[in-house]
Amino acid sequence: MTEFDTGLPSIKQLQAYVKDKQEVELKLVTDDLIVGKIMWQDSQCLCLLDHYDQPTLVWRQALVYLKPKS
Amino acid sequence: MTEFDTGLPSIKQLQAYVKDKQEVELKLVTDDLIVGKIMWQDSQCLCLLDHYDQPTLVWRQALVYLKPKS
Amino acid sequence: MTEFDTGLPSIKQLQAYVKDKQEVELKLVTDDLIVGKIMWQDSQCLCLLDHYDQPTLVWRQALVYLKPKS
Amino acid sequence: MTEFDTGLPSIKQLQAYVKDKQEVELKLVTDDLIVGKIMWQDSQCLCLLDHYDQPTLVWRQALVYLKPKS
Amino acid sequence: MTEFDTGLPSIKQLQAYVKDKQEVELKLVTDDLIVGKIMWQDSQCLCLLDHYDQPTLVWRQALVYLKPKS
Amino acid sequence: MTEFDTGLPSIKQLQAYVKDKQEVELKLVTDDLIVGKIMWQDSQCLCLLDHYDQPTLVWRQALVYLKPKS
Repeated sequence: MTEFDTGLPSIKQLQAYVKDKQEVELKLVTDDLIVGKIMWQDSQCLCLLDHYDQPTLVWRQALVYLKPKS
Repeated sequence: MTEFDTGLPSIKQLQAYVKDKQEVELKLVTDDLIVGKIMWQDSQCLCLLDHYDQPTLVWRQALVYLKPKS
Repeated sequence: MTEFDTGLPSIKQLQAYVKDKQEVELKLVTDDLIVGKIMWQDSQCLCLLDHYDQPTLVWRQALVYLKPKS
Repeated sequence: MTEFDTGLPSIKQLQAYVKDKQEVELKLVTDDLIVGKIMWQDSQCLCLLDHYDQPTLVWRQALVYLKPKS
Repeated sequence: MTEFDTGLPSIKQLQAYVKDKQEVELKLVTDDLIVGKIMWQDSQCLCLLDHYDQPTLVWRQALVYLKPKS
Repeated sequence: MTEFDTGLPSIKQLQAYVKDKQEVELKLVTDDLIVGKIMWQDSQCLCLLDHYDQPTLVWRQALVYLKPKS
C-alpha cells in the first residue's frame, strides 16, 4: 500500500490528471462516488479539490476505481 | 499487494487477456461488476477500457474475481 | 498476503482439493458464494472452474472461507 | 497478516482452544457468525470443524472476533 | 498491521485503559459496537472482557474506532 | 499501513489541522461520518476530540476520506 514508484503506469496516469487539471470520478470502498480534480498524490493519499475548492484527503486503501469525468 | 512477479500464473493469465483483447467481467469489493478490456496492469492497478473507450483505473486491492465474458 | 509457502497446512489443503478435483464452496468478502473446482493457486489468486468450465480468477484478499461441497 | 509467532498471547489462546476442543463463535467480515471447533491454525487460516464434521478453512484476513461458546 | 511498538501513543493509550480497567466502546468493520474492558493487547488482537466476564478476541484488522464509555 | 514519514504531504496536512485546531469531517469504512478536532496522529491511529471533549482513537486502516469542516 505504501509503495510509491513514480515510474509505475498507474502513478504516471494520476500525475497526468494532476497536470491536466482533469476532473475525475472516484469510487470508494464505502460506495461513495466523489468528483473533483486531483491536486497531488503521495504514497498514502490523493488530495482532491471539489467544486467548492474544498480539499479532501482520500486514503489509497479506500480507492476502488477512478475514471476521467466526461 | 504490491508484489508484481510476471512469472505468476495469475499475472500471466491477465497478460494473456490483454494480448487477446478479451472482454472480461470484474467483480469489485463494492459489489460493482464492471465489463471491459484490460489495457495494461501494474503492481497497483488494472486499466480497463469500457464500451465508450473510456479508461478506468481499478486498484488491485479492490479486486474480488475476474472471468472472461462469454 | 503474498506469502506462498507450500509447506503451510492451508496451502497443502487447497493443493489436495486441486488434486482430488474436489468441488468447493467459496465465500467472498462481497458475500458471494461461488462453487467450483480449484484448478491452481498462486500467491495472489485461486483459479476456479465452474459448471460451464469457465475459469474464474479469485483474489486471495477477497477470500473469507472455503469448504468442500458435500 | 502473515506473522505467525507462537509466543503471541492471541496465538496461544487459539492453541488452547484447539487443545481443549472448545467450541467457539467466530464473527467474519461478511457478518457471518460460524460455530465450530478449531482443528488447527497456520499463518493464513484457521481450520474449523462444524457439527457435521465438515472442515472449513477460514482466512485470517476475514476474522473479526472470536469467543468461546458458552 | 503487525507492528507492535509499545512506545506508540495509541498503544500506550490502550495500555492505560487496561491498567485503569476502563470500560470502552469498540466499533468494528462489521458495524458491531462492542463494550467491555481490555484485558490485554498483542500485535494481532485485543482481548475484551464483557459484562458476563466472557473473553473476546478482537482482531486489530477489524478495528475502526474506540472510545472510553462515559 | 504502518509507514509514518512526517515528510509526506498527507501527514503534514494532518499535522497542520492538529496545530490549527481545525474541525474535520472523517469518513470511515463503516460509512460513519465523525466530526472533531485531531489531537495527535501516530502510525496506527488518529486521536479525535469530539464536542464533548471525549477522545476517540480511530485506526488508519478504517480511514476513507477527511476534509475540513466548513
